[in-house]
Amino acid sequence: METMTALVKSHDGEGADIKKIAVPRPRSGEVLLKVHRSSICGSDLPIYYWSSWAPRRIKPPLVFGHEICGEVVEKGAGVTIAVGSRVAVESHIYCGYCATCAAGDRHLCRRMVLVGIDTDGGFADYVTIPERVLWKLDSRIPYDYASLMEPLGNAIYTVCVEPVQEKTVLVMGCGPQGLYAVQAAKAAGAALIVAVEKSAFRAKLAKGLGAHHVIGDHNETFQDIQDKLLSFNQTQEGFDVCLEMSGASALISTAFRVLRNGGRLSLFGLTAGKTGIDIGEDIIFKGIHIYGILGRRLFETWEMMEKYLLEDKISLPKVVTHEFPLTQAQEAFALFSAPEKACGKIVFKVNS
Amino acid sequence: METMTALVKSHDGEGADIKKIAVPRPRSGEVLLKVHRSSICGSDLPIYYWSSWAPRRIKPPLVFGHEICGEVVEKGAGVTIAVGSRVAVESHIYCGYCATCAAGDRHLCRRMVLVGIDTDGGFADYVTIPERVLWKLDSRIPYDYASLMEPLGNAIYTVCVEPVQEKTVLVMGCGPQGLYAVQAAKAAGAALIVAVEKSAFRAKLAKGLGAHHVIGDHNETFQDIQDKLLSFNQTQEGFDVCLEMSGASALISTAFRVLRNGGRLSLFGLTAGKTGIDIGEDIIFKGIHIYGILGRRLFETWEMMEKYLLEDKISLPKVVTHEFPLTQAQEAFALFSAPEKACGKIVFKVNS
Amino acid sequence: METMTALVKSHDGEGADIKKIAVPRPRSGEVLLKVHRSSICGSDLPIYYWSSWAPRRIKPPLVFGHEICGEVVEKGAGVTIAVGSRVAVESHIYCGYCATCAAGDRHLCRRMVLVGIDTDGGFADYVTIPERVLWKLDSRIPYDYASLMEPLGNAIYTVCVEPVQEKTVLVMGCGPQGLYAVQAAKAAGAALIVAVEKSAFRAKLAKGLGAHHVIGDHNETFQDIQDKLLSFNQTQEGFDVCLEMSGASALISTAFRVLRNGGRLSLFGLTAGKTGIDIGEDIIFKGIHIYGILGRRLFETWEMMEKYLLEDKISLPKVVTHEFPLTQAQEAFALFSAPEKACGKIVFKVNS
Amino acid sequence: METMTALVKSHDGEGADIKKIAVPRPRSGEVLLKVHRSSICGSDLPIYYWSSWAPRRIKPPLVFGHEICGEVVEKGAGVTIAVGSRVAVESHIYCGYCATCAAGDRHLCRRMVLVGIDTDGGFADYVTIPERVLWKLDSRIPYDYASLMEPLGNAIYTVCVEPVQEKTVLVMGCGPQGLYAVQAAKAAGAALIVAVEKSAFRAKLAKGLGAHHVIGDHNETFQDIQDKLLSFNQTQEGFDVCLEMSGASALISTAFRVLRNGGRLSLFGLTAGKTGIDIGEDIIFKGIHIYGILGRRLFETWEMMEKYLLEDKISLPKVVTHEFPLTQAQEAFALFSAPEKACGKIVFKVNS
Repeated sequence: METMTALVKSHDGEGADIKKIAVPRPRSGEVLLKVHRSSICGSDLPIYYWSSWAPRRIKPPLVFGHEICGEVVEKGAGVTIAVGSRVAVESHIYCGYCATCAAGDRHLCRRMVLVGIDTDGGFADYVTIPERVLWKLDSRIPYDYASLMEPLGNAIYTVCVEPVQEKTVLVMGCGPQGLYAVQAAKAAGAALIVAVEKSAFRAKLAKGLGAHHVIGDHNETFQDIQDKLLSFNQTQEGFDVCLEMSGASALISTAFRVLRNGGRLSLFGLTAGKTGIDIGEDIIFKGIHIYGILGRRLFETWEMMEKYLLEDKISLPKVVTHEFPLTQAQEAFALFSAPEKACGKIVFKVNS
Repeated sequence: METMTALVKSHDGEGADIKKIAVPRPRSGEVLLKVHRSSICGSDLPIYYWSSWAPRRIKPPLVFGHEICGEVVEKGAGVTIAVGSRVAVESHIYCGYCATCAAGDRHLCRRMVLVGIDTDGGFADYVTIPERVLWKLDSRIPYDYASLMEPLGNAIYTVCVEPVQEKTVLVMGCGPQGLYAVQAAKAAGAALIVAVEKSAFRAKLAKGLGAHHVIGDHNETFQDIQDKLLSFNQTQEGFDVCLEMSGASALISTAFRVLRNGGRLSLFGLTAGKTGIDIGEDIIFKGIHIYGILGRRLFETWEMMEKYLLEDKISLPKVVTHEFPLTQAQEAFALFSAPEKACGKIVFKVNS
Repeated sequence: METMTALVKSHDGEGADIKKIAVPRPRSGEVLLKVHRSSICGSDLPIYYWSSWAPRRIKPPLVFGHEICGEVVEKGAGVTIAVGSRVAVESHIYCGYCATCAAGDRHLCRRMVLVGIDTDGGFADYVTIPERVLWKLDSRIPYDYASLMEPLGNAIYTVCVEPVQEKTVLVMGCGPQGLYAVQAAKAAGAALIVAVEKSAFRAKLAKGLGAHHVIGDHNETFQDIQDKLLSFNQTQEGFDVCLEMSGASALISTAFRVLRNGGRLSLFGLTAGKTGIDIGEDIIFKGIHIYGILGRRLFETWEMMEKYLLEDKISLPKVVTHEFPLTQAQEAFALFSAPEKACGKIVFKVNS
Repeated sequence: METMTALVKSHDGEGADIKKIAVPRPRSGEVLLKVHRSSICGSDLPIYYWSSWAPRRIKPPLVFGHEICGEVVEKGAGVTIAVGSRVAVESHIYCGYCATCAAGDRHLCRRMVLVGIDTDGGFADYVTIPERVLWKLDSRIPYDYASLMEPLGNAIYTVCVEPVQEKTVLVMGCGPQGLYAVQAAKAAGAALIVAVEKSAFRAKLAKGLGAHHVIGDHNETFQDIQDKLLSFNQTQEGFDVCLEMSGASALISTAFRVLRNGGRLSLFGLTAGKTGIDIGEDIIFKGIHIYGILGRRLFETWEMMEKYLLEDKISLPKVVTHEFPLTQAQEAFALFSAPEKACGKIVFKVNS
């Protein structure tokens, strides 16, 4: 356990390097995890390609990767979980003592530390994680896909920040998060699920996961999309809920057009630059309410997620289309960022 | 009762005319009100000056005015309220049968008819109103100011769409609605109330009504305002709640800067054109939630309002600075729209 | 249309009489309904048998029956619904103006008038009903069973007063209301549904409608029932939710034993006399919360119900086991009140 | 720091002994507190007098006392709070990992350990406490009364489990918890606060703390109390909220009589034996909802409490009527349990 293989953002600029580095030691309150799987999140792309927010925040050298499952192999002082426990990792390390944490919103902690961004992460054989952000896996959860609970949690929170039961739900964008959102909306009892997605590959996945309609291929304009959305039988009055998973400003404008009076918009996808919003027409006259979604509730969302998984209402593997060893990281990132979007979730098989 | 005096929007273009017209007759389900007071709302300005949305929606000739109190003097078929009852008017005539009404959101009715916009309103000696939007006045409510319950209801709903108890509250803009919002935030138990207002006249009113601090006079830039807002002792982490009553896009941007993680923004003021919003920085990373506020809840807000008024936690008169007979409408509108904003609420004394 | 057939509670004491009486005339705000179906509710039994609360409240002669569907054949003044419309009846005639109504709790109106109890009801060819308590039937709702929407609404409200998604739900008693509650819990996404029911006939119905387990036949003691309930795999910590539909005091005690910490109890079944509750052990130490359920929310519950029905998540007919003409009322009441409980819901085919 | 003075429940039967015992050592995750004040809770009486539930649960020898404030003087492994910090103690040691904790209800943890009941408590110079249940005191909170935050938290949670703003509130019983409940109801914006209390001493305290009326002295029967409660001007329809702090079954029956339709009952006081409740008349027909209140929310209630205290909306000292050194414990318990109830809260000055 002296050295390990890790994908290291070792310098400014594009790319990351497979290196042999020292295995970290768990401090008080932490465990050492032997990583089993870690998966690529959209927010890993700016780190890899050194774009967007990454140069402002990331301090190389850094092991990145924050969607992680693994086995507890060593314990720091004061840790109670047993060595040998299999766990998934909540990547948001909250302080537990600030006013936001005290008020129950630990996912919005004012002193948040993010795994794989502010501390070394899971694209490595081993990682140290505070015990308080471990989720112990039920033996019936598929261990090979448990790194995907973290992003699935995002999707569930986006869907369920208010009930969607018997509601008409519009999912903007069917990347991995959108695909999990489709599943979560179905599991949570939505009456109608319509998705908007350009990639034929992902549109097909969305259909298989429960979307009643998927529209928006390359031949359709935003006006076409809007017209189609308003034509669905149950939505003549507009959709009850829109889940924005795409980060496309134009789709946000479409969302406001097709939401019903009193409808809800959950914003998850990060847009580039500013989005122009007509406060009166888009929000006030329709009595719209909007939630910015960050992370997952700790640990209400995890508990709900476990139930959905145990009852087979949501499948972790069905969104996964590719698996690689860590050493093929370059290929994996190239595939995930290619314009044709011919993939779902991509998972690294670590330590195997 | 054959003819009456009314302020009529009788043709396209600026202005309105005092005319003698026939007293209307109540149809089934309606009452005839003898108007006691009607007050000017910001949304009456586009009608008077024939600007903004008004030319698209208003069909002259129309009696406008929708903040109304008066006495029931005649009843249509099926009406149960007694002749002689004193009432305030809820200006949003909901259908009661659409899906939005059935779901309890009558203030967002899909077939809404607005008094003084879609039907003849209260700038007249008499007006017909459906019984279902009458609020019977408790004898202890001051009848001379009861037309102001409608706009006060807006402010209360803006404040109380979520609890503000022990919260730090920022009120953007101290026009009549902002002034009522200051009072409502105080009545509802806010821990700190800070207002932003350019007009010295209105800033002074806001202070008198309970704002702990009022900032933003003509010498202060938006950056100054932002710096000051973050300097208050209890707001170093940001405000819990921001009530946007100004319709100024720049203040909306400021709001996002000074809200705390997990904070709430209520949007009431109508902005001109589009407002640029950085979805990620402004909304998602802070877990902000936003409500578009239209009208008032029927009649939960009215019931809460009555309690505040009966306990003297909110004063209707203190926001009123001028009263005119209907025949001085021209002077009243000039005062209300003057750039120096040296007025609060303006009320017409009708039938007197 | 001069006279009609009606089941009239014409005098004190047991029984009711089929009579020819005058067809009523709709007053202002009312419609005349030609009744299509009306069904027997448990609360019709005390009227028929002149037991329990009935002698204190009922003033003969009275046409009873409050689960009604029919067609609008005549309109009083001010009514807007079209002649020919098919409707179900909300049996709770709220005033719309008292403080409870104003606060949005119209189902708890302080001046409530009950159809078939305080006014003539639906066990007759025709009945007059205020327009404001009509629910217009979607053409896809089965008209022959639409009188059952009223009791189904009770069950949905009992289930959904708080979300049951992914919760473990215990249904005490599988009379018609319990059977609808089983369906509603399933439709609303409960993870596990366990029912307690003595009658083998009803236990079989409950199984067919979605209960995972039905226990409590004649050979089982209350201790047996309690032991079994705690033995189910997912409920070792206790049930999340208990729906009390039986009115059996002993089952309420059992409910407190098997609810988890923080669990919820909905009380719908009326018990005879007082029930002894250990406030500390039963409620406080477990942090239990309890709802008394009366009627349905107007009209949020109806709107949710329509969605469940249109998506076939709940079946109205499957709980119906017998249909009779009004003239066989005696047989119908005998069957419904027989100790072996070998029936589900019983419906009168009126005007046919 | 080798030995310390402690009040020890050293054997079965009535009483407790002042002893010199070893100062405990903090384990991993724990701190050693030098106790500043600890106060007597009603639940300390069964331990002292060896009555009720105590013989079943308490295993002598035990240092009891769970309302504690003090200073951190030593840290176990993994503790982050600084030595020298002044803290109040949340007496409910939750596990943080069970399903109830994961779901956000840590105050109802399935593996709860109670300070001073399941582990040695604060009637001693020193006590060890896990860091995760410490509340760091703002410097403006009066340190001499900070042990009272734990019971004040009970009262605030009892009051605020649902909003009481502009509601009419009935407080049953004005022992220390009832007195704090009166203050909390006032701070939280109740429109009317009526208390029921036999002891003239406590009735006077309640009046001074904000109760508009206190009734129920020795000359009044339960019928008198009920009649009076219904005679208050604003409560002719019944009280919106009843807070049951007395543990008197007869007052619970009264509560059901005087609650309005849709009203709320919070149960905090522990009754002896079973209370007979008419499920139909008391709960269902009025649509009452009931909460069993245990502890306080961790740490939402603490955060709200801090705000109330910093704004002087609630006073910790005003409920305190007596202070003793630990060595006068016998006198203190005698006073607290005397039938004339001529005391409010009693505090031990420890280490002084």
